[in-house]
Order: sequence, then C-alpha cells, then structure tokens
Amino acid sequence: VLGIDPGLSRCGFGCVDRRGEKRVVVAAGVVTTSRHLDLPARLMELDTELRALVSELSPEVVVVERVLFQTNARTAMSVGQAAGLAIVAAAQAGCVVTTYSSNEVKLAVAGWGAASKDQVQRMVAMLCELAEPPRPPDVADALALALCHLNLARGQARLEAALRS
Amino acid sequence: VLGIDPGLSRCGFGCVDRRGEKRVVVAAGVVTTSRHLDLPARLMELDTELRALVSELSPEVVVVERVLFQTNARTAMSVGQAAGLAIVAAAQAGCVVTTYSSNEVKLAVAGWGAASKDQVQRMVAMLCELAEPPRPPDVADALALALCHLNLARGQARLEAALRS
Repeated sequence: VLGIDPGLSRCGFGCVDRRGEKRVVVAAGVVTTSRHLDLPARLMELDTELRALVSELSPEVVVVERVLFQTNARTAMSVGQAAGLAIVAAAQAGCVVTTYSSNEVKLAVAGWGAASKDQVQRMVAMLCELAEPPRPPDVADALALALCHLNLARGQARLEAALRS
Repeated sequence: VLGIDPGLSRCGFGCVDRRGEKRVVVAAGVVTTSRHLDLPARLMELDTELRALVSELSPEVVVVERVLFQTNARTAMSVGQAAGLAIVAAAQAGCVVTTYSSNEVKLAVAGWGAASKDQVQRMVAMLCELAEPPRPPDVADALALALCHLNLARGQARLEAALRS
C-alpha cells in the first residue's frame, strides 16, 4: 500500500507492506518540485515523478489524502492539482485508488479522530517498528495513510469473515 | 487559444482563433464525467477527454482558470484536481499554459473586475460576433478565458512595440 500526502512543493510518500501482523516500510520519502519553475513545469515534473514511483513500487493500493478543508485557498488549489495527478497516475497503472480524510486517518491509526500530529507520528513509528517517528512530517503523514488503509482493510476482512461464519 | 473552465462534473472549453481584429470561435463545449463512476475513474475519463481535445484542436496557448477562493471546499478540491490534469495535458502536448483568475478575466473582457456573469457573457457574445450569449455558462466562462488571453497578449504586444519605437 502506497500512501501519498499530495502537495506541489512537497509531496510525501510512504509504502507499507503487510507481512502477517507486521507492517514493513518498503519505501518512504518526499518528492519536491523546484520553486524556480512555473506551475505547468512543476506539475509536469510531479506527474513524471509520481508515475515513476508507482511504476517502481507497483503497489496494489494507492491511498491519497482527501483534503476537506484548507484555510489557505491558494494551497488548497495546488494540493488538489497534485492529488488529481496522483490519483490518475495510480489508476492508469492499474492500482486500486482510495482516499481518506485526515480525521479518518487519525481515527484508524491513533484510535481517535482528534489525535495530534505528534500522537499519529508516534503511532506510525510503533506500528512500523521504527526507532523514532519518521521525518519529515510529510513522510509520516503518507505512512499514516497507508497504515490507515491496512487497518481498515483488516477490520473489514474480519467483519466479512464474521458475517460468513 | 483554448480556454478551460476546470471541473469534475462539468469542464467547459472554448477555443478562439484571432483573425486580424476578429475573434472566431473554433470549438466550444462541455466535457462531463458520469456521477455513477468513482473518483479515480472520473478523473481518468476527464484526463483522456482533455488530452483528446488538446490533440484535436492543437492550440498554441491553453488558459486554465485559476480559482483563488471557493466557499465550497469539496468543490475546490475537485476543481483543483481537474485543473491539474488540464495543465499537465496541455504542457505535455507542448502548449504554452497560462492561468488567469476570474477577476482578471472580467477585467480583460468586460473592462471591470467586478463585472457580473451576465455582463461577461454578453461581452463574449459581442467579441466573438455571436447572436446571443454562449450556453451553458461553463462554455461562456471558457471562451472568456481565451478572450482574456488574446486581449492581454495584444496589449502586451502593443506595449512592446511602443517601447521599441
């Protein structure tokens, strides 16, 4: 599962593999685009990087953060642009694409929809058995998206198994 | 010049050619995506349609509306996603890509940044010598984007000529 925290200047990604009960970080980092380029060039660069990432990691599922509210309207636009590119890149590569809001991620990963950034980061480190919270925060957010999906998918599988039995 | 009024459900486009002092509408319409599909499928459909449009019309310049403020945050996200796809599709096809805000368009087309939708639509009809304002409004908005660029480009060319003389 590849989590993507969309952004034009900084786009965090984190790929988590489930091995039994363990969660293993396969890859994690930040895609950045140069502030010296104009918007079309930056979006093209981001698109190329995201497609390369999806092709290289070939995840089954790609999770893109669904941003519901932004105080900064200018940032909301570029986050939306980056998210659109990520969703299409993943869908065209044949991945299942899903989106979760920040609150859904907090609820699924830290057990509480109003958890602080710090609490989520520590939960990410614990679940992935990392010595310390992943840095920068963009990476932690992307890993949290991937973990959110793994947790919800496991819950759903259990529910379905229970309903069948 | 191809103007694009980005949107997920409805994406208006309008292509205007400058022939001397005349403005001729080459193509105009709305790309829609089905509400019955999920978000990744809709964005892929929109991406395919936009790339086909750019390839068919092969415009020199593509103008995408820059949305600065949206009261509806959910709409802002999908408008941003659609805009990101349009910008990358056009840039990858080798077009010059530019963005104008709604106020810039009103100022350039109707001569007044606070012009009403209706005033802009009537100016679009007048400039393109259409019998009545283009419908639906998405098309009028897209044509206004294209006209905005043609007006500003002419003003800039005149200024440069004056500075040279």
